[in-house]
Amino acid sequence: MISHRKIINKLIKQNISISVAESCTGGLLSSSFTSQSGVSKIFNMGLITYSNKAKIDLLKISPTFLKKYGAVSEETAGKMSINLYKKTKSRMVISTTGIAGPLGGSVKKPVGLVFISIKYKKNMQIIKKKFKGSRIQIQKKTIITIFNEINKLI
Amino acid sequence: MISHRKIINKLIKQNISISVAESCTGGLLSSSFTSQSGVSKIFNMGLITYSNKAKIDLLKISPTFLKKYGAVSEETAGKMSINLYKKTKSRMVISTTGIAGPLGGSVKKPVGLVFISIKYKKNMQIIKKKFKGSRIQIQKKTIITIFNEINKLI
Repeated sequence: MISHRKIINKLIKQNISISVAESCTGGLLSSSFTSQSGVSKIFNMGLITYSNKAKIDLLKISPTFLKKYGAVSEETAGKMSINLYKKTKSRMVISTTGIAGPLGGSVKKPVGLVFISIKYKKNMQIIKKKFKGSRIQIQKKTIITIFNEINKLI
Repeated sequence: MISHRKIINKLIKQNISISVAESCTGGLLSSSFTSQSGVSKIFNMGLITYSNKAKIDLLKISPTFLKKYGAVSEETAGKMSINLYKKTKSRMVISTTGIAGPLGGSVKKPVGLVFISIKYKKNMQIIKKKFKGSRIQIQKKTIITIFNEINKLI
């Protein structure tokens, strides 16, 4: 596993501003950044949009959009990042949405299904994962995946 | 230490909606709530307003106010809760602001100084603490203090 500390230090050194919108990770991603001193220079904003209401109010995602694609979808993950970028203009914007369980899973969208969207400079990628494990393990695996991706990008 | 799980279950059973605005805890408080399954019923919104810009944009605290009292102050902690309540109408609203360190301390506002504001029903309290320890220890002690207070309130 790559050290998160090293990756955050690279972000700080390169002065890459960051904002995050978290659904299934519920604050763990923000916390992973802010556990490190000096990150205040680059960490702009974290939105814990756990509920649909928060996605609507804070990220201006329409109820029609959420109903059409579902909160846990590639489309919503992407929309979260795009709208957060519009709000913050941060150079890197990350969003997560998924089913951390143990409740809330279905055949189509099982527990462990997670979508991660990372927008950096002019590119946006959406990563779909099916993680196994407990709620906290699924959240932690999401964070590890995100830091691995950041490491590739910068 | 009182089990956070038990306190969160009490909040869920009593259907007490919650929103949080975190500065010095940087997502750890939101994460403490959302690590537990079933909390989505009551957890409305988490704002990681680590930077002054986020406090201004998300919580509508004026730059003049922040300049007058400082981001780490009783007044700002209270204002964060009041404005988050206006935004969310959650029954319980919690905010944190402090100096988690190791950088950023001064004689007047040393590392470990933390203000916690909890608004519940018609009452609001502001708790001032001077914690010792590392950055993560200061963040964790803040969370423990908050859960102890919630336990007294509900």
